[in-house]
Amino acid sequence: MEKSTMAQSKGTVVLAYSGGLDTSCILVWLKEQGYDVIAYLANIGQKEDFEAARKKALALGAKKVYIEDISREFVEEFIWPAVQANALYEDRYLLGTALARPCIARRQVEIAQREGAQHIAHGATGKGNDQVRFELTCYALCPKIKVVAPWRLPEFYQRFPGRRELMDYAKKHGIPVPVTPQTPWSMDENLMHISYEAGILENPKNQAPPGLYTKTRDPATSPDTPDVLEIEFERGVPVKVTNIGDGATRSSALELFVYLNDIAGKHGVGRIDIVENRFVGMKSRGIYETPAGTILYHAHLDIEAFTMDREVRKIKQGLALKFSELVYNGFWHSPECEFLRHCIGRSQEPVVGTVHLSVFKGQVYILGRESPRSLYNEELVSMNVQGDYEPADATGFININSLRLKEYHRLQSKVTVKQDE
Amino acid sequence: MEKSTMAQSKGTVVLAYSGGLDTSCILVWLKEQGYDVIAYLANIGQKEDFEAARKKALALGAKKVYIEDISREFVEEFIWPAVQANALYEDRYLLGTALARPCIARRQVEIAQREGAQHIAHGATGKGNDQVRFELTCYALCPKIKVVAPWRLPEFYQRFPGRRELMDYAKKHGIPVPVTPQTPWSMDENLMHISYEAGILENPKNQAPPGLYTKTRDPATSPDTPDVLEIEFERGVPVKVTNIGDGATRSSALELFVYLNDIAGKHGVGRIDIVENRFVGMKSRGIYETPAGTILYHAHLDIEAFTMDREVRKIKQGLALKFSELVYNGFWHSPECEFLRHCIGRSQEPVVGTVHLSVFKGQVYILGRESPRSLYNEELVSMNVQGDYEPADATGFININSLRLKEYHRLQSKVTVKQDE
Amino acid sequence: MEKSTMAQSKGTVVLAYSGGLDTSCILVWLKEQGYDVIAYLANIGQKEDFEAARKKALALGAKKVYIEDISREFVEEFIWPAVQANALYEDRYLLGTALARPCIARRQVEIAQREGAQHIAHGATGKGNDQVRFELTCYALCPKIKVVAPWRLPEFYQRFPGRRELMDYAKKHGIPVPVTPQTPWSMDENLMHISYEAGILENPKNQAPPGLYTKTRDPATSPDTPDVLEIEFERGVPVKVTNIGDGATRSSALELFVYLNDIAGKHGVGRIDIVENRFVGMKSRGIYETPAGTILYHAHLDIEAFTMDREVRKIKQGLALKFSELVYNGFWHSPECEFLRHCIGRSQEPVVGTVHLSVFKGQVYILGRESPRSLYNEELVSMNVQGDYEPADATGFININSLRLKEYHRLQSKVTVKQDE
Amino acid sequence: MEKSTMAQSKGTVVLAYSGGLDTSCILVWLKEQGYDVIAYLANIGQKEDFEAARKKALALGAKKVYIEDISREFVEEFIWPAVQANALYEDRYLLGTALARPCIARRQVEIAQREGAQHIAHGATGKGNDQVRFELTCYALCPKIKVVAPWRLPEFYQRFPGRRELMDYAKKHGIPVPVTPQTPWSMDENLMHISYEAGILENPKNQAPPGLYTKTRDPATSPDTPDVLEIEFERGVPVKVTNIGDGATRSSALELFVYLNDIAGKHGVGRIDIVENRFVGMKSRGIYETPAGTILYHAHLDIEAFTMDREVRKIKQGLALKFSELVYNGFWHSPECEFLRHCIGRSQEPVVGTVHLSVFKGQVYILGRESPRSLYNEELVSMNVQGDYEPADATGFININSLRLKEYHRLQSKVTVKQDE
Repeated sequence: MEKSTMAQSKGTVVLAYSGGLDTSCILVWLKEQGYDVIAYLANIGQKEDFEAARKKALALGAKKVYIEDISREFVEEFIWPAVQANALYEDRYLLGTALARPCIARRQVEIAQREGAQHIAHGATGKGNDQVRFELTCYALCPKIKVVAPWRLPEFYQRFPGRRELMDYAKKHGIPVPVTPQTPWSMDENLMHISYEAGILENPKNQAPPGLYTKTRDPATSPDTPDVLEIEFERGVPVKVTNIGDGATRSSALELFVYLNDIAGKHGVGRIDIVENRFVGMKSRGIYETPAGTILYHAHLDIEAFTMDREVRKIKQGLALKFSELVYNGFWHSPECEFLRHCIGRSQEPVVGTVHLSVFKGQVYILGRESPRSLYNEELVSMNVQGDYEPADATGFININSLRLKEYHRLQSKVTVKQDE
Repeated sequence: MEKSTMAQSKGTVVLAYSGGLDTSCILVWLKEQGYDVIAYLANIGQKEDFEAARKKALALGAKKVYIEDISREFVEEFIWPAVQANALYEDRYLLGTALARPCIARRQVEIAQREGAQHIAHGATGKGNDQVRFELTCYALCPKIKVVAPWRLPEFYQRFPGRRELMDYAKKHGIPVPVTPQTPWSMDENLMHISYEAGILENPKNQAPPGLYTKTRDPATSPDTPDVLEIEFERGVPVKVTNIGDGATRSSALELFVYLNDIAGKHGVGRIDIVENRFVGMKSRGIYETPAGTILYHAHLDIEAFTMDREVRKIKQGLALKFSELVYNGFWHSPECEFLRHCIGRSQEPVVGTVHLSVFKGQVYILGRESPRSLYNEELVSMNVQGDYEPADATGFININSLRLKEYHRLQSKVTVKQDE
Repeated sequence: MEKSTMAQSKGTVVLAYSGGLDTSCILVWLKEQGYDVIAYLANIGQKEDFEAARKKALALGAKKVYIEDISREFVEEFIWPAVQANALYEDRYLLGTALARPCIARRQVEIAQREGAQHIAHGATGKGNDQVRFELTCYALCPKIKVVAPWRLPEFYQRFPGRRELMDYAKKHGIPVPVTPQTPWSMDENLMHISYEAGILENPKNQAPPGLYTKTRDPATSPDTPDVLEIEFERGVPVKVTNIGDGATRSSALELFVYLNDIAGKHGVGRIDIVENRFVGMKSRGIYETPAGTILYHAHLDIEAFTMDREVRKIKQGLALKFSELVYNGFWHSPECEFLRHCIGRSQEPVVGTVHLSVFKGQVYILGRESPRSLYNEELVSMNVQGDYEPADATGFININSLRLKEYHRLQSKVTVKQDE
Repeated sequence: MEKSTMAQSKGTVVLAYSGGLDTSCILVWLKEQGYDVIAYLANIGQKEDFEAARKKALALGAKKVYIEDISREFVEEFIWPAVQANALYEDRYLLGTALARPCIARRQVEIAQREGAQHIAHGATGKGNDQVRFELTCYALCPKIKVVAPWRLPEFYQRFPGRRELMDYAKKHGIPVPVTPQTPWSMDENLMHISYEAGILENPKNQAPPGLYTKTRDPATSPDTPDVLEIEFERGVPVKVTNIGDGATRSSALELFVYLNDIAGKHGVGRIDIVENRFVGMKSRGIYETPAGTILYHAHLDIEAFTMDREVRKIKQGLALKFSELVYNGFWHSPECEFLRHCIGRSQEPVVGTVHLSVFKGQVYILGRESPRSLYNEELVSMNVQGDYEPADATGFININSLRLKEYHRLQSKVTVKQDE
């Protein structure tokens, strides 16, 4: 860059760089606009040639490249709280992308602060959730940061209305162009899940093409024998997995999660095809794979039901519903989400024990459970033993519960009679 | 019965009779106590030789026997509202038994009223939910009715502490005793589901024995090709099912439900093994099969997400959570449950359309959906077309949403600095 | 502006005109920008010389002036649903302004449609809630309408950074300037309430100056004898007020509401000083007077508690909380708010009866109530009569309710013992 | 009592003794039944001659008498959490009795444990809430304890169907009979509140007689000048009260609360007349005075709104609603209530600052507030200063929020058109 243009530098920007066409073009374009660009590529478990990406970014003029492995903190600080919450957006989505964004953006802010960068940039579109998740994280952690979101800047998105214009720009600026033909949908992957959307999937009636899935095998061709696992929980978080079949065990958070991904993926577990409501107000269609997350969702539900008081559970369920919505909408780093994580965490203190389950043909089957902190009382519930229970009490219980219903009936009859007169 | 004892008749009781050992003994015991017994056997879709049961009841001294087919009203008036609600107790249980009880008890009350009976009796245990569901229904519909619940009467349950005493009593009173050995667990079946609990299942760690299931095939031996279905909804209720494979269709509520039971059963869909919280305050373990209900749960979730406004959905989800709890606890016939059914029903007006799904190896896979009332806007959500959407608006949206977070950060920094000083 | 530029008319705009300095300047400025301006002044119960305002608007160049009395529909269609809901934002604010906005804007949209205007303009600031309430109403009722919000346009707000610049502009363009000195706070009034904010009130520690209040008398100088009223409700809505003192009665919605305003105002009822959370994310301080609304809030709470089932009430309370938030945030015209109004309306069917209350020195005291649809059962609750109640039932009720607590205690002891070892 | 009958001692019972006619008769009756009776009289702030009561109990044959001053722990451990929660049952009741019961019963259990008593007895009726609150506390803290509730035992309540029979019994057993005529209603008092119910108040239309109130002066004759107070909060709990008029201050929990009772009582603050829903299912009418509690409710609401994030507040409000219900129903000592107290407590960390208010003629008027942890930003909210706020952002914010509403309108139009065709 010539000195003459240096005078008009707009400062330093940390770009969330993926190595793909879009963010490569954005990198060059940001330089064109007068920014010093630091490329930041988070290794959050996606399949990627990180070194190739580093070279590419440097070749395109990045002042510096950060490749940060944040997989472990993704699991421990983001996925685990979601497991504790049984977090599910709109009854179906396990929040794989939504959980990754604040983890990625948090590190991005840290880099910006370390580097004295005033700006942060990302390649998220202007219609999606990810822009919100990125930016709310940035603003929450560093209010004075400035976000550059090219896909929301008319000078950018009008210049690149389609992929062709990006390709032209790439060729012109020596940006390597992908050699394999693009899939007719877009993907976003991390350790927890992969999403497929856009393109031919935008028609919500179109069935996902057979070859689409990458993280899970087709249940039609998955093994004909299940893997049987024991998952041990402490404070609502998995601490050990044992495969009953071959005795394999995993204990550290990251290894355990990767292992569950393998097992679940092998058996085709974790596929969904949904229409969901984005925070910006539109409905969108997504196809997701969340292998390990799906096993853990079922296992945690089970051990929680076994160890948590009924009424605490009900309150916690309400909090988790709100938590899931906040995470989806990008409010991971917010006072309310912090508050909810604290409360949900508190509820998990007794969630200790082991769940036995089988993974087979796209399904997770709970087989049994045990816990030193269970509130399950075999004697109390037994149909053969009376235990510390007086059946006659149930009569009073029912009678008192019926009082209100009888009063209501009494009134209804009165009203109806009157109306009939 | 001799005339001399007739003088002390306690009146007429309508007994919910199953034809099994327990309620047969209860029938005779009630007569012994001085009641005139009318046996009432609801055909709610369970496998049963109803005519044999009729003869048995008469032989045991029932004054009259009612065998009532209430399957259709069970589907239309009880299951359909649950489908509309996506009703799920504690995130897992589709409420198969809980929905049947108020349906059975409602007819029982009608019979009692028709027959001028002052009493109603049932064979539910004193520790369970069913006694509550039965009796709250009775009291809500006819407050002056009196319930005789032998399993809560010391004179009964102390006389029959175990199965052996029942058997002895049966032999003594000429009650036919089951010839097949009893399963080491108890079962309760209706059109929607079957439950297995008690006995060897009371140990929550014990895995369900392989031969236990009766309504679904083992996914390990289920067909290797899926059935692909289209389910059409109106007002949140299925109105037509088409099997894409063979073109079979079903339209009436009952036939459609039975058909889905067949398909789901054939593919091993709808098995769960859970620990749940009973209304009387204890945890219990149950294994359930809900074939058609599971398909409909997934299908309805999908069409609802496609057609219902995001915020309406969120409110409705909260109502449905409450609804599920009320149904589980036996409050189907209550002012609050009535209110919720009305509200949830209202929310279903736009829930119209067709869901495409595949049933395979224990799983239901949503393939796609279409609707004339969808709020999904392909153009709006498209990544390639701008549609009626201004990306720059998202900047303002995010900025305003971040305002609160920035303020919070500002304060936290202030507080932290102060604390550091 | 030269005639030549006039040729490029931007079309017609319907301006929500108040007759004050701000919207008078906006009217002239809009003309300057090339709009044909239709002035619309809603009579929603505020004190105003409407005819003077009409003349002023015409003198300033309005193409047409609409002065619309929407007081009656404000009461019947907006205030009544809020009374039914016991609507309260953040536990204190009766939503006086929030309820008026969608009523005003709805008529504005109707005028725009009648006049074929493409634009709507208002004088609400860029930091407040009213802009949102105005515009969401417009977009919800007529998505294609375009809103001109001068206080959010840099060309406007940078030109008029303060009142002085507005005054200068007014003088230059022959806009009559207020002769009375401005109060050091801003006010917004309608039939239901008046708000005071900004200026010296922006410091949340500053006490409201004594002369500020306009709708209620100072309780210190209010009458030394109360007014005792009977308010009759049907479907949760007041249908008749009787003053026990002088026998005065009011029955039509508008007259009844105006009468309650008089009585409450005379006794200093309805003043609050609060800090609230705006939808745009900041906290603001407001002082409000809501005379009639305060009486009705208390009266409705009372008759509702008297006639509504406990559990229905609890569900309805949750819905009303959401309703209040939606109304505050400007979502009156939204699918979710429509849904809530329907549900809340349904809950009000039994809310029938008469509340006796006294209004005195800033307070509303409930004295008693009666209703043909009350669920209150004097015999049942009596401490002297047993009624249809078996005290022994309460033993069973309590015992069963304690089951869960005992189990929890049992576990806690076990855990504590273990930890002690 | 003869030695011969003594042989069949039923063990020791700790009786919650009030010194009044009812519990005096119960004391003697319990002895008659063969119990050793320990009388326990909690000093929880009610007006009572405790020494006279001690003598009376001993004279009636109590083996031992405990008079325990639990006022301080009542304030600090029970009232303070309720203040933090803004606890309000059914929108009106500040829970004065409901908070006292678990405090009283907890000490009763401690005494029973210390004394090796197997039983606990109380004089609460069989229709009310207090029996539940007492006993759930006992069972939660000591599951093996046995409760004797005479008013639920047929042998007791059938023997004493009315006051006359109690009087006769008293005379016969040398129990001193009250000399002053009984009020035609019953009262229950503690430091926080007094309740009046039953008797002539059972008719919900009957106005409270003028002389009924004992804790507050009639607002008609209360002082004509207000008391102006500053209440300082830390972690949502009042830590200092200053009377601006005379400079009086109070800092310790108990003194502060007593002082606020004095001030509020003097100005007639805290009276309500309500119909509420009891846990056992009936509606009851109560008249309550809660002087200090009413001031603190208003003051805490204000400081909380000033310092707590909007969204945290909303979640906390939901938790507090549940908390209030649990406290009312007697579940103070339960896992869920413990959980809620923890969560609500956490939310109170930033609730710090001082509220200025005036107490006058039955009302509490908030005058202003200040806090070092306020989230209120005067510059941000100012109508005169732009602050760190970009008005144009609000345009994007509104537009994005309207997206969903526009889509809904689009669909409605489509549907309507179709229906018209």
